[in-house]
Amino acid sequence: MNYKKILKEIETEIQSELKKGKVADYIPALAEVEPNQFAMTITLADGKQYSVGKSKEYFSIQSISKVLAFSLAIDTYSTSLYKRVGVEPSGSPFNSLVQLEYENGIPRNPFINAGAIVVMDALMSHFGGDYAALEKVMNFTREISDNPIIQFDPIVAKSEMEHASRNLALSQLMKSFGNFENDVHEVVRTYFKQCAISMSTEDLSRAMIYLAFNGKDPISNKEFLTEAQAKRINALMLTCGHYDASGEFAFNVGLPAKSGVGGGIVAVVPNIMSIAVWSPRLNAYGNSHVGTLALQLFTTKTGLSIF
Amino acid sequence: MNYKKILKEIETEIQSELKKGKVADYIPALAEVEPNQFAMTITLADGKQYSVGKSKEYFSIQSISKVLAFSLAIDTYSTSLYKRVGVEPSGSPFNSLVQLEYENGIPRNPFINAGAIVVMDALMSHFGGDYAALEKVMNFTREISDNPIIQFDPIVAKSEMEHASRNLALSQLMKSFGNFENDVHEVVRTYFKQCAISMSTEDLSRAMIYLAFNGKDPISNKEFLTEAQAKRINALMLTCGHYDASGEFAFNVGLPAKSGVGGGIVAVVPNIMSIAVWSPRLNAYGNSHVGTLALQLFTTKTGLSIF
Amino acid sequence: MNYKKILKEIETEIQSELKKGKVADYIPALAEVEPNQFAMTITLADGKQYSVGKSKEYFSIQSISKVLAFSLAIDTYSTSLYKRVGVEPSGSPFNSLVQLEYENGIPRNPFINAGAIVVMDALMSHFGGDYAALEKVMNFTREISDNPIIQFDPIVAKSEMEHASRNLALSQLMKSFGNFENDVHEVVRTYFKQCAISMSTEDLSRAMIYLAFNGKDPISNKEFLTEAQAKRINALMLTCGHYDASGEFAFNVGLPAKSGVGGGIVAVVPNIMSIAVWSPRLNAYGNSHVGTLALQLFTTKTGLSIF
Amino acid sequence: MNYKKILKEIETEIQSELKKGKVADYIPALAEVEPNQFAMTITLADGKQYSVGKSKEYFSIQSISKVLAFSLAIDTYSTSLYKRVGVEPSGSPFNSLVQLEYENGIPRNPFINAGAIVVMDALMSHFGGDYAALEKVMNFTREISDNPIIQFDPIVAKSEMEHASRNLALSQLMKSFGNFENDVHEVVRTYFKQCAISMSTEDLSRAMIYLAFNGKDPISNKEFLTEAQAKRINALMLTCGHYDASGEFAFNVGLPAKSGVGGGIVAVVPNIMSIAVWSPRLNAYGNSHVGTLALQLFTTKTGLSIF
Repeated sequence: MNYKKILKEIETEIQSELKKGKVADYIPALAEVEPNQFAMTITLADGKQYSVGKSKEYFSIQSISKVLAFSLAIDTYSTSLYKRVGVEPSGSPFNSLVQLEYENGIPRNPFINAGAIVVMDALMSHFGGDYAALEKVMNFTREISDNPIIQFDPIVAKSEMEHASRNLALSQLMKSFGNFENDVHEVVRTYFKQCAISMSTEDLSRAMIYLAFNGKDPISNKEFLTEAQAKRINALMLTCGHYDASGEFAFNVGLPAKSGVGGGIVAVVPNIMSIAVWSPRLNAYGNSHVGTLALQLFTTKTGLSIF
Repeated sequence: MNYKKILKEIETEIQSELKKGKVADYIPALAEVEPNQFAMTITLADGKQYSVGKSKEYFSIQSISKVLAFSLAIDTYSTSLYKRVGVEPSGSPFNSLVQLEYENGIPRNPFINAGAIVVMDALMSHFGGDYAALEKVMNFTREISDNPIIQFDPIVAKSEMEHASRNLALSQLMKSFGNFENDVHEVVRTYFKQCAISMSTEDLSRAMIYLAFNGKDPISNKEFLTEAQAKRINALMLTCGHYDASGEFAFNVGLPAKSGVGGGIVAVVPNIMSIAVWSPRLNAYGNSHVGTLALQLFTTKTGLSIF
Repeated sequence: MNYKKILKEIETEIQSELKKGKVADYIPALAEVEPNQFAMTITLADGKQYSVGKSKEYFSIQSISKVLAFSLAIDTYSTSLYKRVGVEPSGSPFNSLVQLEYENGIPRNPFINAGAIVVMDALMSHFGGDYAALEKVMNFTREISDNPIIQFDPIVAKSEMEHASRNLALSQLMKSFGNFENDVHEVVRTYFKQCAISMSTEDLSRAMIYLAFNGKDPISNKEFLTEAQAKRINALMLTCGHYDASGEFAFNVGLPAKSGVGGGIVAVVPNIMSIAVWSPRLNAYGNSHVGTLALQLFTTKTGLSIF
Repeated sequence: MNYKKILKEIETEIQSELKKGKVADYIPALAEVEPNQFAMTITLADGKQYSVGKSKEYFSIQSISKVLAFSLAIDTYSTSLYKRVGVEPSGSPFNSLVQLEYENGIPRNPFINAGAIVVMDALMSHFGGDYAALEKVMNFTREISDNPIIQFDPIVAKSEMEHASRNLALSQLMKSFGNFENDVHEVVRTYFKQCAISMSTEDLSRAMIYLAFNGKDPISNKEFLTEAQAKRINALMLTCGHYDASGEFAFNVGLPAKSGVGGGIVAVVPNIMSIAVWSPRLNAYGNSHVGTLALQLFTTKTGLSIF
């Protein structure tokens, strides 16, 4: 398939949509990003990449980092992790406390905030201290991206910590149910640093290819996860990857994918490729407006949806 | 691939599990089914079928019928149907009223009871009367199954109507929000008749092949749905097809599928085949224990998961 | 105390408020009442009554009837009634299903709709048929009012039945939990007839005096309830008598009282008197705007609050 | 009335119940209290006190302190306080987050934990720092008790802070809705110190008499609250003073009252007296078993219920 041509077409077709939606403004540092940007990169099994737009521009990956941390956590804990976090869609907004209270402090899945925080808590219990666990996530990210200089943005992390009360509430609630092991503030602070990791679509697309190939990176030949673990993450991305619009996304795009409020989305075409898109303006569900559209155009043009 | 051999292997491997789980007992007529039965059928694009077990035995398809009625409804109403029923996972048990009240009487998706009932209400508004709408569903079912003698079991339907209070409550609640058009009792009674349709795995597997091939039956060459509509149903089956265990099922089986409390499950392998399994004993989530296992074995042995 | 003078003062002081608030419009037949009316009557232990305004005008007592039916029900079932209906404030709107689902079909108290319906269900189980139970409530009402010609308004009852879906949903939900004994539609229809009882403030004030005197009517010397039963009802009126504004009402008025959407409110001053007010326009909580104000003025002027 | 004799009778009659119920064990320091104790004191308008049992023994007043802090807060903020905390029963357990999330961070009333914490937050905003606000509450308590040596127990406060996660979750949730002004940990720490105030039934009974006499202490002649403010507190105690058993308590005892998990209960008989009881073992609702019983016996024997 002529991916280069297809990406060019997509870049042209999304232009008229670039000013729709609005940038996340609850995190001041994110609100300052120039909003009308776009980038898209695909990575194939042989390492070949095709990109359009600002594909080398770093942006805040935010909730996409939940996939990275969860990968590390199931590699570390295997299925015992599921005692602390579930694998089902939540049917509630990403930061609701209601379901968490009714279900005794066990978050529905690792992609809602409560679930992602408990994953960081588990990583900190295993690897010790905030720096150690964070460093593990960072190093895992650098390794799968094949980019040793990936960092988190301390200004974004600090900006988020200043609006942390909802996440602290979720954490204290889990703690009250016995589902928390480390200091609440330390875990949330570290979680925000993880969310503040900066990557380009080239990095992200490269990084996700292990999930397209059953846990084994076909470029480096490194096996990061078992086939079952990779399948689990893909199933989670498909059913829970886009908050309260996961069903809509599954229909429109038809690929396992995860979005972040920084405007990034990663997706995998099983056994074929990994994709990253970025455009900061968000739709009503908090997912990149143009990013979603670009992926939809891609699966329509290539027929590469899983359905 | 040697499907015949694979099905034989599955039939052997599930034997030791046949007595686990328990038959649905809240519907007396269903509780009387001989529990240790098993059948599995696959149908390919050329019409070829492979079966093991009691693949000609009729059983109550129950919630699998929601896929049939919803197909007819989106063919009838197109996207205007989504004003009355959503497309997102519910995160709640199949018959909860809580979410329905908070969301002003619009059910989360067409596969929870409230959603399926509103679909029948819509069909009755369009086709008139209960017999007319039911007859439409029956005829659609007969046509896609290529089996003109398919019927519903009036004893099962009557048995369900005697335990209808929860479904009547859901319906009255939707009515109080203005999301109901016909007589509540008549709609629920007709809905139960639809659920009481009796089919074999041979019928069901044959019937579902239009969903594996973008809405167009490759055997009869009839186009039942548009490609977008078929994709929508597959996305719904993947994200919402197994109540509160949809995430687990997506991981274990990795196929768009829909289960019923009669012990049946249908699944599609996009562009390749449709599958039906049946075994009456249910797991804790109300899905066929052996049926789920058989599908899991099938995707493991064939590699035909969508992930 | 010069009650006559105090009532006259109140009548004067509420004039400027008579056009505030709005008449209940979800029941068409109630919406037609001339809105700017007012009446107030007090009844003392010796039978002496003082009235101002249209105290002989009949109006629909609506939820005030819940007190009458509950009186009859605890006289019939004694404390065994509490297996089916609780005695605590609900903290939710009067017709919410959420709490009812979480609490397994046992309504919080007999003054929310679900509770009042289950009380009627219990009366029908005991007295048989809808007419028999309704006749019992009517006769009880006639006896305590000392007015044999009290009737319910069939037009109001019919009008309510046409908007019954929420109450039918509550009833079907209770039935699904096993907390319902008779035909749902028959019980709700009878319940609406009970709500449609027409009385004047003179009737209502006279009727309630048994609750001011420990269950024993000091005028007729008939004992309708035990002291404990009367205390129970007064406690319920104080904590749950005004839906989601019970705390506010307890503060403003400081008397056990029960309101209805027809604009009536009854109140008791323990060991001293019973009071009835009426004015059709309602405040934001569904309680009579001027009625609440008149009671507040009364307790302020007389010091007869329980606090 | 011969109060001395009545209290003696009560002391005798509750003996057989003294070993029923269990001491609060979620706060380790409270769990160590000798459980089979009892004390009761009444205080009349002329300052005369009658006591039975260990009426000079200090115990942890816990939630009774919410009445003291709220008195100070409405004296400070008047009705503007109601923008931050409501006055209605909650219908939920004392520490639920569900209602708080649905109602945008405004607690239902000042006697559930969220409400009491927001009251302390308001006091800290006005009086500055934790010591300053706490000192104000302590001094107010000393003044109304006429006992200058009242202290809080730092061991109890510290023990509670070690199990603070639920209260921290409530606080962070309110903060996320903008209903929190000071540092969450500092407010909760101060709140626990307030709950850890130690008083005897003689102290507490003396302290509460201003609420029995419209805000004005009849012994010292000091006016602590306006008549309306005192009425508000009495209404709140009656409708919300005993968590999810407020309706039951209103029926059984029939007095405005507030309990604490330390086993204390205070109650007021408007215009007549204030009462304090203490016995550490709690019933299923978290209220003192024998304390509730003693108050019930008292209102039965004296007829001094408000109904």
